[in-house]
Amino acid sequence: MTEHHETILGLQDTTEVLHRISERLGEKYASIFAAETVERYVFESYAALARTAKVTAYLPVTAEHFAADRLHALATSKGAVASDVPEVVFVCVQNAGRSQMAAALLTVEAKGRINVRSAGSMPAAELDPAVRAAMSEMGLDLSRSYPKPLTDDVVRASDVVITMGCGDSCPIYPGKRYEDWDLPDPSGQSLESVRQVRDQIQERVRALAGSLLNPTEKDHI
Amino acid sequence: MTEHHETILGLQDTTEVLHRISERLGEKYASIFAAETVERYVFESYAALARTAKVTAYLPVTAEHFAADRLHALATSKGAVASDVPEVVFVCVQNAGRSQMAAALLTVEAKGRINVRSAGSMPAAELDPAVRAAMSEMGLDLSRSYPKPLTDDVVRASDVVITMGCGDSCPIYPGKRYEDWDLPDPSGQSLESVRQVRDQIQERVRALAGSLLNPTEKDHI
Repeated sequence: MTEHHETILGLQDTTEVLHRISERLGEKYASIFAAETVERYVFESYAALARTAKVTAYLPVTAEHFAADRLHALATSKGAVASDVPEVVFVCVQNAGRSQMAAALLTVEAKGRINVRSAGSMPAAELDPAVRAAMSEMGLDLSRSYPKPLTDDVVRASDVVITMGCGDSCPIYPGKRYEDWDLPDPSGQSLESVRQVRDQIQERVRALAGSLLNPTEKDHI
Repeated sequence: MTEHHETILGLQDTTEVLHRISERLGEKYASIFAAETVERYVFESYAALARTAKVTAYLPVTAEHFAADRLHALATSKGAVASDVPEVVFVCVQNAGRSQMAAALLTVEAKGRINVRSAGSMPAAELDPAVRAAMSEMGLDLSRSYPKPLTDDVVRASDVVITMGCGDSCPIYPGKRYEDWDLPDPSGQSLESVRQVRDQIQERVRALAGSLLNPTEKDHI
């Protein structure tokens, strides 16, 4: 009983934190979105992550990041925020391995010339530890990355949608480039196996970056 | 290539259907929500179901139902729509068995005097066939029920939140009654096992209905 009571008290604070986040993002997007829209994004982003996330202590911080990115995506798709670089989203089932590696590798490859996101159809509780390790040994820190569900706003904002083992779960909108990459699922695999998947992804990511950044070149994909 | 092209054409229609749904619901809620809010609800509800649902042919229809119910929940929690009956939500992991049975059984028990919803932390592709069968033999038709993710709006609108095996995944807001029911997961079980779970749920549901509808009685829970 005491424990239950404490939980409720703890989460009263969460509600207040989410309201403060809503106000902060509401000011930032005041010229684009109604305050109601921003508040809904913050609270639904929190609920969406709470459904599956393992660590809950930093969940409001993560929810703020997720909500801010989704609002930015929506603003981009409405043309309210200018985007002069291609927008790419990688989608796999858990957003814990393949799509996270692909997003990190394309971000490095593109050096700011592509805006990169990732998402999952059934987000895992956390990133695969072997995936974090395989990226860490390349100097890429995924400690602040988190699995998140694929949302409509992110698909809308994207010029390129790359699915990996979850093609059916992604809404298809006209005017976008869709690709399905057939890659092994690294979930629960050894570090050595994950490294192999990582290297396959890197090869494809380089070809993708080439085709997006040098569209006059022959498409390597 | 042809197949891919056809898919895109097919889903261009989906986009149009979702816009028409947005207009319809937008008119209904014109005095309560901005058109932007309603459109976001429709498209995000569609994307959320598309992530996990198995059957996609009727997905826009299902998405309209889900979006309409979420908007109604949000309107209720804002006090913009009067609710003179208790609001209850049942939450399990897949929203394919326990929470669906509980919602159907409480709806029957309450005879309109309680508003009942259900949701899941990781929605399954479809309802468990044995669960449909066990409810069907009681005369309850779950053929139009569908697994859906737990959303902030539904939790907010609820006076009572009953979790079953997924307590951590549900946002806790002050002023609500939270209970966790310890019940076996019927997923993949035989019809006979599912019947036993169903009957356990029915017993608890009756006690819950009694405590909500006759609050002066001793609480049986």
